[in-house]
Amino acid sequence: MDATSVARPDPDAVADVVRRLCGDYGTRAVTGNAVREQHSHGEGLADAGMPDVVVFPHSNDEVAAVVRLCRAVRVPVIPFGVGTSLEGHVAALYGGVCLDLSQMDRVLQVNAEDLDCRVQAGVTREQLNAELKGTGLFFPIDPGANATLGGMTATRASGTNAVRYGTMRENVLGLSVVTAAGQLVHTGGRARKSSAGYDLTRLFVGAEGTLGVITEIQLRLYGIPEAISAAVCQFPDLESAVNTTITAMQTGIPVARIELLDDVQMDASIRFSKLEGFAAAPTLFFEFHGSPASVKEQAEAMQAVSNEFGGSAYQWATLPEERSRLWKARHDAYYAALAFRPGTTAFATDACVPISRLAQCILETKKDIEASGLTAPILGHVGDGNFHLVVLFDPTSDEARQRAETLARGVSLRAIAMGGTCTGEHGIGWHKLDVLAQEHGEDAVELMRVIKRALDPDNIMNPGKTVPL
Amino acid sequence: MDATSVARPDPDAVADVVRRLCGDYGTRAVTGNAVREQHSHGEGLADAGMPDVVVFPHSNDEVAAVVRLCRAVRVPVIPFGVGTSLEGHVAALYGGVCLDLSQMDRVLQVNAEDLDCRVQAGVTREQLNAELKGTGLFFPIDPGANATLGGMTATRASGTNAVRYGTMRENVLGLSVVTAAGQLVHTGGRARKSSAGYDLTRLFVGAEGTLGVITEIQLRLYGIPEAISAAVCQFPDLESAVNTTITAMQTGIPVARIELLDDVQMDASIRFSKLEGFAAAPTLFFEFHGSPASVKEQAEAMQAVSNEFGGSAYQWATLPEERSRLWKARHDAYYAALAFRPGTTAFATDACVPISRLAQCILETKKDIEASGLTAPILGHVGDGNFHLVVLFDPTSDEARQRAETLARGVSLRAIAMGGTCTGEHGIGWHKLDVLAQEHGEDAVELMRVIKRALDPDNIMNPGKTVPL
Repeated sequence: MDATSVARPDPDAVADVVRRLCGDYGTRAVTGNAVREQHSHGEGLADAGMPDVVVFPHSNDEVAAVVRLCRAVRVPVIPFGVGTSLEGHVAALYGGVCLDLSQMDRVLQVNAEDLDCRVQAGVTREQLNAELKGTGLFFPIDPGANATLGGMTATRASGTNAVRYGTMRENVLGLSVVTAAGQLVHTGGRARKSSAGYDLTRLFVGAEGTLGVITEIQLRLYGIPEAISAAVCQFPDLESAVNTTITAMQTGIPVARIELLDDVQMDASIRFSKLEGFAAAPTLFFEFHGSPASVKEQAEAMQAVSNEFGGSAYQWATLPEERSRLWKARHDAYYAALAFRPGTTAFATDACVPISRLAQCILETKKDIEASGLTAPILGHVGDGNFHLVVLFDPTSDEARQRAETLARGVSLRAIAMGGTCTGEHGIGWHKLDVLAQEHGEDAVELMRVIKRALDPDNIMNPGKTVPL
Repeated sequence: MDATSVARPDPDAVADVVRRLCGDYGTRAVTGNAVREQHSHGEGLADAGMPDVVVFPHSNDEVAAVVRLCRAVRVPVIPFGVGTSLEGHVAALYGGVCLDLSQMDRVLQVNAEDLDCRVQAGVTREQLNAELKGTGLFFPIDPGANATLGGMTATRASGTNAVRYGTMRENVLGLSVVTAAGQLVHTGGRARKSSAGYDLTRLFVGAEGTLGVITEIQLRLYGIPEAISAAVCQFPDLESAVNTTITAMQTGIPVARIELLDDVQMDASIRFSKLEGFAAAPTLFFEFHGSPASVKEQAEAMQAVSNEFGGSAYQWATLPEERSRLWKARHDAYYAALAFRPGTTAFATDACVPISRLAQCILETKKDIEASGLTAPILGHVGDGNFHLVVLFDPTSDEARQRAETLARGVSLRAIAMGGTCTGEHGIGWHKLDVLAQEHGEDAVELMRVIKRALDPDNIMNPGKTVPL
């Protein structure tokens, strides 16, 4: 990160903004150290940057007013959901105002007949699905963490269901965004498709708050499948598990989730989540959605592929509570990894490659891990070619941290060299700024800069993230 | 259209550019009237604007060189595929250089194992599918016309299969684009998903050549379904046909195509395409893709819904040649409509609404048509909430043209008022410039302008289209 490319804001301007916000928002503008510290980082590496004040807006107008205030005196604005980001997105690198949107948490509309809804940015995905109970609908995008939908939109998140339902890119129909000029803009609409003008929606999806603050999101919803079944299959080696995935994708089995946990991750998850009856071996978790007949057909096709690669008999989770336990174990994988080596800390990195390169990419990564001497479980949404490394290291050792960062960087560069991306779903934040040009080329990054400068000429929107200036 | 908002380029500059291009490209730079006239319009209304020269580049470098030449002296550049656009996209409103990309027609890569390919912008969708023969793969997006994939990308096209496979927005993985500065930029990649930086790909998809010239496209491919079946069902009235569609979508039947032809369109198509055994009544064409069991299940579910709304027995087309004949009739609907009232001319307009509003939108439109005294068949990709009007009118009467335009404008405004869009797939071009702000709001259009000005400060890229400046 080149933290020096942006000047810190004028201290007097910051003090003035803080004073005015405290006056305007009372107890919803917080300057206490504990709250500022909590808002200084996500769940990634120690990437803290303390904001000068944390404001909890309740409306689009309040967000717009805060941005206008900040813009007038060039003070940074950093949007914050619940702080589950992994690449340093929420660190206030230059201080400024943290806009915590968690109190903008209303589901504004559910249009069951059109399979869409509109939510405020602070609604979490679990809250949305809880509020959808009884409608027969659900929102499938599931990055594991109970993130806000604003944060998920801003990072172009995806997760376990993306292989079937797509990512936030495909599932956001429209947005309300407060621009750097403090104007509220509505993008997209409720039609399933449109050719009317530039795709502003997709410009803000994944922009990590650097082009504007997302305040509302129109989302696609889906009918809860008539039948759902989940299964677990274990493999003699990593290659077999990955090749099972590749074959399934290439033959077009419409599986809803296909998740890999390597031997180390399974070891950690068996301990952490008390998974019984499983070995610490490379494992795939599957979920099938459809009509009863189609789910049966998918599962049979999947079993045939697994058998080819020496997979174990399927262990089925058909009851909803069994399925929940299984997916909770999958979702807790990151925390299981953290608990696996007491005394270590960890960060997650992700990469995504064309499916034909997945086996080579994962196996070479596994060798790198061995060579590094670190513990780093591999897991991922392999149906998309997407996998994660949770890199554990001794936080008291600079050398260990350096080794961990080098390992992660190697994964990014390998994925890029294979025609893939340095991040399938976590985003750039500031940890991956230095590889963006390797992936897209300097000319494409320059185009991103042109857009950033045009939309945020004073660089007040989450400065220091997404695009190296 | 406000054609006066951009100055015509300096005639001497144009003459100089033409002279240089003729020198550099020989017979691939054409100034003859016939070729210029052919490149002055698409298939829409009489929207002609003659370019000063038509150049047929063979490579990215040649495209970049032409753009650099034009930029230096502020001469417009208008990309051209095969001229099937419907909203005036290719008219050289201010003269300039038409870049006809039809000779950049190579399929550059087919990565069968990753279900993707890379094509030059001049490859047509039929050519691509012909070249994919034997791979077991196909490219599903099918707007009817045998358009180039560059043109389809530039207009964010979709068509009959979009309800199942998405639009160009979802199926373009990456692009090569020559920017207004004459630089070749590569966007996106081959990974299925990425959170790395701004979504430049989606910015160019649908930008109608106003931000750059698309020269190459990385596309998703799909396995040819194991089983395909198609059927036709006729209905006692328009409302029943539309309500059948709405129910099918709301209950989640994963139909691959669901196409409406109203009584007038059926009358035209029966005559033009010699469709036997059908009445001139509101009709749905279906296609089902999947395993044999799943296709059977989908078809049974669909028949049950149609029966509820008084639909006729299904007429099946199971043999490939029967299916082809059926879909050829659907694809020829526009030409059938044109032939329906000899002596008239026609243009197509499209709109897309949330599915719950589709019946109301189409029925009110039908009333407007009756009130207008014009003939205007209704047809469309109703599974997406998308429908078209082919408005026939006497080209010798200004009054008739005015009535036709008023009718079309009414459809746009009604769709917008219902939370939909003035164009689901044809684009803005210049015919719909005046309704863009009604759909998105002035602030969103201003944001589009900011992007346009930042990426094309001299307004040389297809000027006068997409965004009113």
